[in-house]
Amino acid sequence: MLAKEAEFIAAERLRSISVSPIITMMARAKALQRGGLDIIDLSVGEPDFATPENVVEAAERAMRDGHTRYTVLDGMDELKAVICEKFRRDNGLEYELNEVSVAAGAKQSIFNAMMATLNPGDEVILPSPYWSSYADIAGISHGVPVVVHCKEDRNFLLTAEELDAAITPRTRWLVINSPSNPSGAAYSAAEYWEIVEVLKRHPHVWILSDDIYELITFDDFEFTTPAALDPELKARTLTVNGVSKTYAMTGWRIGYAGGPLSLIKAMRAVHSQATSCPCSVSQIAAIEAMQGPQAIVEERRREFEKRRNLVIGALKEMPGLSTTLPRGAFYAYVNCADFMGRTSPEGVVIDSDVAFCEYLLDQAHVALVPGNAFGASPYIRLSYAASAETLTEALGRIEAACEALD
Amino acid sequence: MLAKEAEFIAAERLRSISVSPIITMMARAKALQRGGLDIIDLSVGEPDFATPENVVEAAERAMRDGHTRYTVLDGMDELKAVICEKFRRDNGLEYELNEVSVAAGAKQSIFNAMMATLNPGDEVILPSPYWSSYADIAGISHGVPVVVHCKEDRNFLLTAEELDAAITPRTRWLVINSPSNPSGAAYSAAEYWEIVEVLKRHPHVWILSDDIYELITFDDFEFTTPAALDPELKARTLTVNGVSKTYAMTGWRIGYAGGPLSLIKAMRAVHSQATSCPCSVSQIAAIEAMQGPQAIVEERRREFEKRRNLVIGALKEMPGLSTTLPRGAFYAYVNCADFMGRTSPEGVVIDSDVAFCEYLLDQAHVALVPGNAFGASPYIRLSYAASAETLTEALGRIEAACEALD
Repeated sequence: MLAKEAEFIAAERLRSISVSPIITMMARAKALQRGGLDIIDLSVGEPDFATPENVVEAAERAMRDGHTRYTVLDGMDELKAVICEKFRRDNGLEYELNEVSVAAGAKQSIFNAMMATLNPGDEVILPSPYWSSYADIAGISHGVPVVVHCKEDRNFLLTAEELDAAITPRTRWLVINSPSNPSGAAYSAAEYWEIVEVLKRHPHVWILSDDIYELITFDDFEFTTPAALDPELKARTLTVNGVSKTYAMTGWRIGYAGGPLSLIKAMRAVHSQATSCPCSVSQIAAIEAMQGPQAIVEERRREFEKRRNLVIGALKEMPGLSTTLPRGAFYAYVNCADFMGRTSPEGVVIDSDVAFCEYLLDQAHVALVPGNAFGASPYIRLSYAASAETLTEALGRIEAACEALD
Repeated sequence: MLAKEAEFIAAERLRSISVSPIITMMARAKALQRGGLDIIDLSVGEPDFATPENVVEAAERAMRDGHTRYTVLDGMDELKAVICEKFRRDNGLEYELNEVSVAAGAKQSIFNAMMATLNPGDEVILPSPYWSSYADIAGISHGVPVVVHCKEDRNFLLTAEELDAAITPRTRWLVINSPSNPSGAAYSAAEYWEIVEVLKRHPHVWILSDDIYELITFDDFEFTTPAALDPELKARTLTVNGVSKTYAMTGWRIGYAGGPLSLIKAMRAVHSQATSCPCSVSQIAAIEAMQGPQAIVEERRREFEKRRNLVIGALKEMPGLSTTLPRGAFYAYVNCADFMGRTSPEGVVIDSDVAFCEYLLDQAHVALVPGNAFGASPYIRLSYAASAETLTEALGRIEAACEALD
């Protein structure tokens, strides 16, 4: 009677979520690589650069100086002060120390915010294509993602009409990610104002602005963030950012958020139960990243711009694939509708962007992420966080694989 | 009409929790210190030692070698392999790589487990005194903490009868922490067997064994862990551990858990939405900590034992205070019932352990944690993760403050 296997029943909150499809694709590509295949992995969401030397040196000093113990729960004051200074200098945003919260990556800031606010049935508006975790984080917090399908011919920017139609009395958050993962779409101040006018008519809607790609923008795009546009809006906006993308520090796990004290305090209560403080060494590293020499940021931004031009230029020449021009981040979001219904040399019908991605992984040995991970199909996301040489090789392989389709 | 402050409404899940009272006490003590007062902080839950030199060196190499990017979500395979080897060597437990999950501290492992399993109304049995976060983590996951008050004259060990009476059809977890924070209580194999017999009659109850203080035990106490006692029990036990206490690595944030695949997978889904991977540099540091030279662990264990003897010896001589003999960890859980109802020189009546702690902070400048944080009053928790000199000074101050009570 006792010999049977223990029965495991997962919590209901897990029904709506799964392990992030991006992480699944990364894991699959890594497994194939370990198996000896020459996989080009363009599924990754992180810069291919090294963490800057001055940051590594600061981390070494931190370890030597004994910064290896618990810090204040949501970040040491020294780091919060640097973050406040960054908000002031770069964004014209004034936050007090206690209106700022540091977490183990921007993802945790977003998780803390959703867990701190959502009750069952509360709605979170997600303009698609969106970073898949927004939907899953809303879901695990018992919220309901409300997807607004933004149009490719509007460069995937949310319109005032689309937003207005999506808002209900249950709307709790609008999540904006500019520049966007996966599309590279980004809002100018004028474009933001169109949707700000709508938001001002609906004071119960809060805004989560994920600015993680702020410093990777192209063609003299002028970055702005919703909280900076209007004081009334700032009082219900959470501005999320982090050092991961700007300083090639994804592995260090330091993100942060600025917002109204009431929200930040509630986020701290969630944080307090989930993880305790972010890594102490990483916090010191983040201080140096944000207040040390910044020249490397512009160097790398220029490098990403060159790669974007390379990738978008090559994709334009490929029959059947099309893409918008990314204003920022390091992804091309590629329309692959023309290949739906086509047949692979092995006789497999390509009936979705997932099938198309699997085909490209098997045939071209290039790892990409299917658009269904971002709530907009049929597309593929190509990360150009790779060298020009690698990108050229990958694009050649993709083209050949596309040509092999019947 | 739009000028009013944005109204913030926190999610209902926050009603049952607050920022951990231990963290609150740490923050209060730090604030007083910054204010210039000579505060002796014995509220801390971390070793006062430095992270071992070999671990720091490994972390430096990791940064130099570019281990600064995302790793696999719940820990790199190299670290998981070291953890499996540790479970095998120290605990006689066999886990496969995918039955192990690494998190940003053992707290996150526990959070992942509760979030992955608890539905509203599910019960979590907590023998008190317990680490306060267990109750809050259960609460934020919509679970119901069921507190079993363990008796001081049984050394705060849970009895078979107490456990049996607490189990209901809604019981999901029994949380065991041996050695215990805050009491230092620890179960011998024979003592575990008493409650294991009960658990075997209730196959729907899962066991979360928090073994974080495993390697800090005294008087030749033989550590054991529930999953090692019985294969049927192992199939429904999550064994949680981490490098924080053993290797003085609290700030690095690396904890881990071994358990049945179904549970570990569900925990991974939660983890995937909350934080992405643990800090990559910290993961490499943890590998070195666990597989490098271990002599320092025994050295430090002996040092903790000396301090325990010093503290328990001194407390025995103090009128009005009493304590059990801790078998492990680095806390004394001190009964202060005799001081309830007494009056301070300022005329304040000491009516709770919170009031007693506040009095000791104000009068003796010693920071402790009140027993109400651990579900058992009136007690105070004194951490002896401090030098013998500091402990002697603190004990003297406490004694003088106690004598000043009317």
